[in-house]
Amino acid sequence: MAHPIEFYFDFSSPYGYLAGEKINALAAKQGRTVNWRPILLGAVFKVNGQKPLTMIPMKDSYAVRDIVRSARFMGLPIKMPSKFPINGIAPTRAFYWLNERNATQAQQFALACFRALFVDDQDISKPEVVAAVAKTLGIAEGEILDAMNSEAVKDTTRKAVDAAIAAGVFGSPYVVVDGEPFWGADRLDQVARWMEKGPW
Amino acid sequence: MAHPIEFYFDFSSPYGYLAGEKINALAAKQGRTVNWRPILLGAVFKVNGQKPLTMIPMKDSYAVRDIVRSARFMGLPIKMPSKFPINGIAPTRAFYWLNERNATQAQQFALACFRALFVDDQDISKPEVVAAVAKTLGIAEGEILDAMNSEAVKDTTRKAVDAAIAAGVFGSPYVVVDGEPFWGADRLDQVARWMEKGPW
Repeated sequence: MAHPIEFYFDFSSPYGYLAGEKINALAAKQGRTVNWRPILLGAVFKVNGQKPLTMIPMKDSYAVRDIVRSARFMGLPIKMPSKFPINGIAPTRAFYWLNERNATQAQQFALACFRALFVDDQDISKPEVVAAVAKTLGIAEGEILDAMNSEAVKDTTRKAVDAAIAAGVFGSPYVVVDGEPFWGADRLDQVARWMEKGPW
Repeated sequence: MAHPIEFYFDFSSPYGYLAGEKINALAAKQGRTVNWRPILLGAVFKVNGQKPLTMIPMKDSYAVRDIVRSARFMGLPIKMPSKFPINGIAPTRAFYWLNERNATQAQQFALACFRALFVDDQDISKPEVVAAVAKTLGIAEGEILDAMNSEAVKDTTRKAVDAAIAAGVFGSPYVVVDGEPFWGADRLDQVARWMEKGPW
């Protein structure tokens, strides 16, 4: 069995959403599983001085156009959120709490959060919205709200994000296959080829 | 006959080189020609505060890896120049001078400059190197050296770059098909589909 691939993403990243919709099926075709690892781009940007695409003059309006066009090109629904970007810390904490219990359910939860934000315009920066999303997967709202407030979960999250930055993760989506990094939903074709045939 | 498409690029842009190797054939398949329009990203960066990819912490080493890997993925030779990025003003001026005389030859010249920089590690920021590249296409070295020093050519170049920025061009390559902008060599698949079928 080949090693799992690593899938880093920020919950506020539209290209992360696009990759999230495709990555598991892409990996499964090559007999691989995927480790989902949410990060916080805000923490990355403090290190490298970057800004969200939609806050860069000239790129801002193009970015929205490209996001919507790329989603349709990939056959995925999208509606740009009325509040964007959002802070992904609440769903990120909820994810890492869930992930220790049930990694499959944690991935379903992450995808449900992405869809809540990028299809249904729900503000997943709010813990109560995150809990409502979790409820649709049968997770008790009280329990996940407590988890998002837990010091232990906050600490786990901080360590996971720090470890990603230390590993060089600077964007979303960011996929690592056998040590080889690929940044962007537009690199999924290269990810597929790398899994299938290795280096070229 | 469908309208020509617009192909903006910076001579120092590796992804511009990758797109430059593909764009004319891609357009010809759909019965289109291409207007090549070199720009100077340095002038764009003054407007929007951006930096070259290879000067952004964390992205820098990834960028080189992705450039080389993407070139091979596209079946193109590449060798990262020992001096990078370079200032593209000399070949840009030479291009606009040539373009007024012979647009086809100007495109061949641009491609020859890209290959000189990204395959043969020649410093095309130097007018004498640009003239040597032009000579391989049968253009008199003295004439093109004079052109690069001409106030009229400098003025034409400045106006072309300013017009591109005013039109919203912020990166390289940047392709416009019937008013629709596409940024990046990784958008050529979308460019092809847009030419073939229009908006989706």
